[in-house]
Amino acid sequence: MTDKQIIYTTPPAPAIDPSLTSGTFRVRLVPRPVHIPADKLLVRVHYLSLEPAMRQWLTAKRSYIAPVEEGTVMRGQSIAQVVGVGEDLTSQYKSGDWVVVYSGWQEYALVGERETEKVTVPPGGRRTDALSVLGTTGLTAYFGLLEVGKLKAGETVVISGAAGATGMVAGQIARIKGAKRVVGLAGSNEKCHFLVEELGFDSAINYKNTDWRKRLQEATPEYIDVFFDNTGGDILDACLARAARDARFVICGAISQYNAARPQGPANFMSIISQRITMKGFIVFDYIKNYPAARKELASWLAEGKLKRKEHIVLGGLEAAPQALVDLYAGANIGKMMVQVAPVSEALTKAKL
Amino acid sequence: MTDKQIIYTTPPAPAIDPSLTSGTFRVRLVPRPVHIPADKLLVRVHYLSLEPAMRQWLTAKRSYIAPVEEGTVMRGQSIAQVVGVGEDLTSQYKSGDWVVVYSGWQEYALVGERETEKVTVPPGGRRTDALSVLGTTGLTAYFGLLEVGKLKAGETVVISGAAGATGMVAGQIARIKGAKRVVGLAGSNEKCHFLVEELGFDSAINYKNTDWRKRLQEATPEYIDVFFDNTGGDILDACLARAARDARFVICGAISQYNAARPQGPANFMSIISQRITMKGFIVFDYIKNYPAARKELASWLAEGKLKRKEHIVLGGLEAAPQALVDLYAGANIGKMMVQVAPVSEALTKAKL
Repeated sequence: MTDKQIIYTTPPAPAIDPSLTSGTFRVRLVPRPVHIPADKLLVRVHYLSLEPAMRQWLTAKRSYIAPVEEGTVMRGQSIAQVVGVGEDLTSQYKSGDWVVVYSGWQEYALVGERETEKVTVPPGGRRTDALSVLGTTGLTAYFGLLEVGKLKAGETVVISGAAGATGMVAGQIARIKGAKRVVGLAGSNEKCHFLVEELGFDSAINYKNTDWRKRLQEATPEYIDVFFDNTGGDILDACLARAARDARFVICGAISQYNAARPQGPANFMSIISQRITMKGFIVFDYIKNYPAARKELASWLAEGKLKRKEHIVLGGLEAAPQALVDLYAGANIGKMMVQVAPVSEALTKAKL
Repeated sequence: MTDKQIIYTTPPAPAIDPSLTSGTFRVRLVPRPVHIPADKLLVRVHYLSLEPAMRQWLTAKRSYIAPVEEGTVMRGQSIAQVVGVGEDLTSQYKSGDWVVVYSGWQEYALVGERETEKVTVPPGGRRTDALSVLGTTGLTAYFGLLEVGKLKAGETVVISGAAGATGMVAGQIARIKGAKRVVGLAGSNEKCHFLVEELGFDSAINYKNTDWRKRLQEATPEYIDVFFDNTGGDILDACLARAARDARFVICGAISQYNAARPQGPANFMSIISQRITMKGFIVFDYIKNYPAARKELASWLAEGKLKRKEHIVLGGLEAAPQALVDLYAGANIGKMMVQVAPVSEALTKAKL
């Protein structure tokens, strides 16, 4: 049998080009693995997770993770189902198990135990939560806001990219933890409406409106104690100008700058001194020992209805992933963006096994 | 009797213009105060301290301190001598006492007790040390490197503006505290020579040479653990690209950007995420409770010869201050820049009282 892979072939210059004939990626057809090595699982990929960090993985710069090599399968996390088990792993896994795995962008993958985690669906949960609220997305929001941002009850929190997968969880955690004001920045009125009406943000500002700086000022009468930044650029600059003394700026991402040939550094940088700001970047993997406790808390909020999920699932199979990634940078999504790789019917059938 | 003041009259646009007829400041002649209020001291200013932060004091932006108002005496710290004591203060002060005081740029000043501190000259010390190694300059280096930067023995430290008053103290403290490598960046070969030969820096790089980025790379084979930044701009950017994982970036100043109409934010900002950098600004006043202990340690290093001072004293009286401030931004000084206001002969005479 022949399976499909998406291969990273051409460095973005600087934006990702979604064309599968002349762009950043190509489709490759390969024979499905027949032999399963003793220490591997063969998995069928169901949902790919799309993440803003992916653009960085295509840059041959010193980073927290090696860049994806040209000519290899595009890196990515997915929800997958075990379809074959190597002999060393039969006591731990069986066919039909659902897993979260770094499968890459392909229909089938041979994966080791270390890059694989079983999906446990808590009460009120869904399988896909393992890629969003209960996955690294939700954990990023959790550790970023609480460990890096050291949010205290009564503080003012501002979140950029607030309608994105991580931002929306961060904002809800801020609410749950007793922030005085939770303010979101997002790129459409629809997103802003969603943040306030569905998720309980105190206010949300469409940064594409010309008066957004004024709105930000009005929304933060006591300045900003914690800024959870997913975007960088002008929004980071505006928040630097509104920082409270001893503010914590959690640098989670800089989606507005990932495709820039020369990224825009924050011009209001001097506020770091005058307001004694602590600006700190982080990678969620550094908190891996604390994942279980954090997940338990996230799952309980989900079960109690305090934490809401939102998924943006792209259909069209693996070939839809490059365009979906471009759309992610354009802000097309509300909530967690995933690409459905296997037909739903197949997932349902397998789930019954 | 008539005394002289330097008045701030015209906002820099954006650079300070040293002309006393058409520039940022004007000379004003005023009668010397005759009556001394009960809660004040009348002091004769001897040495003015010039500091990179002064440019920021002329900007009407929210900052750590209110801007200097147009039409008032330019703000500044000095070493001064008490020449008259209000009746409430006679138990604490007498004529002839030397003090460090926020006198502003004037020959004589009436000052309150709160903005005044007596100068104690430790063994091997000088009076002017109270403006440099034992004053807020040295304390800024001390708390910045140790409290904000959390330097540990064995780490690599890079210091920008390393031949400036604060930078040179920071580098020496790094040496004393067991840093593995202390690397300075400065703007001339003379400064670099001074840092290595006189102060014991492991290496010093002239950032005006075209190969400075390469030199920085060579000087930091294990990357940078602590960056003590006085300059901002391109140097901050280059150090971001050389940051070690979990690096601390101490943002003390940004002298390269103070006169910029639109400051240059760090384009290599994304390293903050990938290397989990903590970037923190600070103001030395926040550590005021710990000044005595820090001063004691600094004074002991000075007495033991482990910590060296370097003064750059500008003659010419009060009128020389505006040009000296412009020269400070141009990097004309090695070490602490001061303007001598009263004639030395007078100081010597008074000192004998």
